Amino acid sequence: MRAPSDTPAFDAATLEAMLTAPHADVRAEVLHLLGQPALHIDVECSRDAHREQVLAALKVLADAGLGSVAYPKEFGGRGSPGSVIAVLETLGLGDLSIMVKYGVQFGLWGGSIYQLGTAKHHQRWLHDIGTLALPGAYAMTEIGHGSNVRDLETQARYLSDTEEFEIHTPHAGAGKEWIGNAALHGRMAVVFAQLEVAGEYHGVHALVVPLRDESGDVLPGICIKDNGAKVGLNGIDNGRIWFDRVRVPRDHLLDRFGRVDDDGRYVSPIASEGRRFFTMLGTLVAGRISIAGGGVSVAKTALTIATRYSTRRRQFGPDGQAERPIFDFTTHRRALMPRLAATYGLHFAVRDLTERFDRVMLQAAQGEAAELELREIEVVAAGLKAVTSWHAIETVQASREAMGGRGYRADNRLGRLRDDADIFTTFEGANVVLLQLVAKGLLTHFRSEMGDLNFAGLVRYVAERAQHRVAEANPVAQRRTDPEHLRDPRMHEAALRYREERLTVSAARRLKRRIDDGLDPFDALNEVQDHLVSLALAHVERQGHAA
Amino acid sequence: MRAPSDTPAFDAATLEAMLTAPHADVRAEVLHLLGQPALHIDVECSRDAHREQVLAALKVLADAGLGSVAYPKEFGGRGSPGSVIAVLETLGLGDLSIMVKYGVQFGLWGGSIYQLGTAKHHQRWLHDIGTLALPGAYAMTEIGHGSNVRDLETQARYLSDTEEFEIHTPHAGAGKEWIGNAALHGRMAVVFAQLEVAGEYHGVHALVVPLRDESGDVLPGICIKDNGAKVGLNGIDNGRIWFDRVRVPRDHLLDRFGRVDDDGRYVSPIASEGRRFFTMLGTLVAGRISIAGGGVSVAKTALTIATRYSTRRRQFGPDGQAERPIFDFTTHRRALMPRLAATYGLHFAVRDLTERFDRVMLQAAQGEAAELELREIEVVAAGLKAVTSWHAIETVQASREAMGGRGYRADNRLGRLRDDADIFTTFEGANVVLLQLVAKGLLTHFRSEMGDLNFAGLVRYVAERAQHRVAEANPVAQRRTDPEHLRDPRMHEAALRYREERLTVSAARRLKRRIDDGLDPFDALNEVQDHLVSLALAHVERQGHAA
Repeated sequence: MRAPSDTPAFDAATLEAMLTAPHADVRAEVLHLLGQPALHIDVECSRDAHREQVLAALKVLADAGLGSVAYPKEFGGRGSPGSVIAVLETLGLGDLSIMVKYGVQFGLWGGSIYQLGTAKHHQRWLHDIGTLALPGAYAMTEIGHGSNVRDLETQARYLSDTEEFEIHTPHAGAGKEWIGNAALHGRMAVVFAQLEVAGEYHGVHALVVPLRDESGDVLPGICIKDNGAKVGLNGIDNGRIWFDRVRVPRDHLLDRFGRVDDDGRYVSPIASEGRRFFTMLGTLVAGRISIAGGGVSVAKTALTIATRYSTRRRQFGPDGQAERPIFDFTTHRRALMPRLAATYGLHFAVRDLTERFDRVMLQAAQGEAAELELREIEVVAAGLKAVTSWHAIETVQASREAMGGRGYRADNRLGRLRDDADIFTTFEGANVVLLQLVAKGLLTHFRSEMGDLNFAGLVRYVAERAQHRVAEANPVAQRRTDPEHLRDPRMHEAALRYREERLTVSAARRLKRRIDDGLDPFDALNEVQDHLVSLALAHVERQGHAA
Repeated sequence: MRAPSDTPAFDAATLEAMLTAPHADVRAEVLHLLGQPALHIDVECSRDAHREQVLAALKVLADAGLGSVAYPKEFGGRGSPGSVIAVLETLGLGDLSIMVKYGVQFGLWGGSIYQLGTAKHHQRWLHDIGTLALPGAYAMTEIGHGSNVRDLETQARYLSDTEEFEIHTPHAGAGKEWIGNAALHGRMAVVFAQLEVAGEYHGVHALVVPLRDESGDVLPGICIKDNGAKVGLNGIDNGRIWFDRVRVPRDHLLDRFGRVDDDGRYVSPIASEGRRFFTMLGTLVAGRISIAGGGVSVAKTALTIATRYSTRRRQFGPDGQAERPIFDFTTHRRALMPRLAATYGLHFAVRDLTERFDRVMLQAAQGEAAELELREIEVVAAGLKAVTSWHAIETVQASREAMGGRGYRADNRLGRLRDDADIFTTFEGANVVLLQLVAKGLLTHFRSEMGDLNFAGLVRYVAERAQHRVAEANPVAQRRTDPEHLRDPRMHEAALRYREERLTVSAARRLKRRIDDGLDPFDALNEVQDHLVSLALAHVERQGHAA
């Protein structure tokens, strides 16, 4: 084992340049701030102190202009949506509460104003969001509905006489839950609610609802409860919110994809309620890419800590000889090095996705539609979020164990990293739910060829078409074991593609059989759910390889 | 899914009786105390408060006579070593700091006095240890030597003129590390040190060394530092200890397996230093079985919490129908139910091992030797400790994810359970190190047939003998898929045995090739380390199946 101080066998500067691109300057800016005392959180600080320190850290970032990098220059920003992910990835190397609170304030709260709102909203709020003068929340999840966003129950009824919306929580279980910035710091929230106009429902829409007055007191009709101690991320003030017939003016509806006109009629540029819903959920895509990037950062931190320690720590050796660095042991290397390789792969997969997303957002800003590409990005983002978040916590766990007792010291960070990153597998969509979205996306990939066939029809189509499809040979079946073949990236690509293809076809066949037997599509999907998860993972792993 | 309130399809009372045997009365006693406020630890209490509460909880257990269950009646005990594991398993359902501190005080500290000491030590200390009047520590691990106990560096030199031992830490890195009860509460410690008598070394021995006086002040020559905040188990006051030529009288050597006689000569009933070392480490066997039992308890707790929640929580459903309990989803069941089945298997594997251990200890107390059986028990204990500890943290993680955001609430216990149980994979022997002991035990299983052949000779013997051995057919190769065959326990047993046999033979062959090529056995073992770990896991899984 080469000691870390030796000259590396590769050009470290080139590798660093590859790893910090794009937005290397923004990353350097954040990394510098991460080194400041204001962004250092003591491992044993109380929950109250942690929350205040994280708020103060956010102010440091905002003061450096890093809160508004995504927003247009006219609102004090840098007009660089891609920079947000670079900021989050770099914050992911430090205390994760800072990263997540940054994501809540500038990504979810500010991002939904920017993405779902229109000029009047931008002019009114975007600047103050970027400077942290206006802390806010993103109130989507409810107590009774987490992953199932479509069925959430908060109501937003349009009152035509006063041109207001009435925001209402119909029962205690419909209260908003786990809302970051709600328990203490949020002054307003984007609230997702079922929109009712003139007795007709139009699905989930987003509205801006004030939560607290200037002095921080909760406004009438609003009840907020602290979510209390969590397993991790205790620097975030998550809370529950209930609304008791709270009124907001008509222009508080974020109306890019659906609005109420002067005559009190609902109007939307997107006719299908389902499509509108998924378009609005597009705000989650950036969040999911960010979590994927954050997960990769967590894995990097853990592997750096564990690998450095392993090259120094000595234990056991041949009889009569010096003890060996524990990194010399086979099981130790196998615990860390494949995870390091996967971390590189996932790093570049996230980077490629970020670049695709940037391009699409730029096109969208210029009025060009790229719906199919956005759909694909959504699918990959969902899959990468799931894979990176599992990778992160498994890597932290392996790193902790590789360090033995030393890894159990709180100041070596692995415990807090695991506790904080743990929820990455759940928030912004539970991993298993997201992987099913990925699989369904793959199964309905041919939709454009088939018009408006329903799900059952689609599955039949894929299953039948499949007879003629898996023509590609299984490259593993050749049983060639020469190193040249085994190391050939084309062989890997072919193997990964073959696996995905096989899983697609077999899943479609199993679904078809059940649907043909008269099973409800919901139940048919449930019976092959683990198959769909395998298919989704196969897809993400191929994407990671391609990157 | 049957609601939990319905009449179960099996006789719950019979199952409960199976699960609580043996020592059902002791378990009930502890369970009752676990329900008392004194044993309830708030999830957000500070480290200082946690430590004091855990000490107070230990006093409650001691006052109920539960500290001395293993010790003979003449010292206030119940003479029931098996009860200790029942107590620990039950404490494993509550705050794990209480379980671990119980293990440190009554199992490791008291247990080593009882197992490694002789009548004079028992008479002097055992009663006060059982009542917690004399809190103590078990000082084995050092900063520089964790899993590699044999090479630890603390010195115990016999001074014949004053008939004392001089306990000394030769350099800072040889300080004792992670010693429970050291930072605050321990008044004495069993210290493991290299024994030197008249210029000759006799390997690691255990001596009783006072740490603090009656008022709790640290004694001269002793330096103790708090290990500080840990990832979990913060109710335990772990510390580092350094000794600066501290003297203790001759009778402080725990001298069951080696003593210094009146003439200042070293005398031992066990001639081989290696065998003596492993006999002394036998005290760790009870500890490892306890951790295995504790790990099973952690898995039970997590699965109970997650499964109950899953039958109540509803999310998603067919179009136009009510949402389904999340337990209805395939991926959800597959995350929890195989782990529940494994938990039952491991429960009975630990119970069987406990009973075997009890029998051997009873025989030993009556002067009957059962060395081969004890060796086997040591091997299975090491393997079960590894498998159950990994099972525990994987199960907690799966349970947390299955509960989504609800699992991330600190008061739902899963976070603390994972943080506490995490170290089970490391302490009392790192899992990967223990599994190598298991594999080496399997490879040298034929030792008795072969006399004193060295390791290289043994491996050659196994590899050659193997040619004639794997005669058993692979039961899976029959490709029978009828349910009767697939559910036949004999088929499972045959398959598990076949796998283990194959792995033994192939490991021996790979080792032989390397040793024949002139590789040092240490390096040969290292090159096939992952193979040895697989072999050990196969062995433990077969043991679990047999139970």
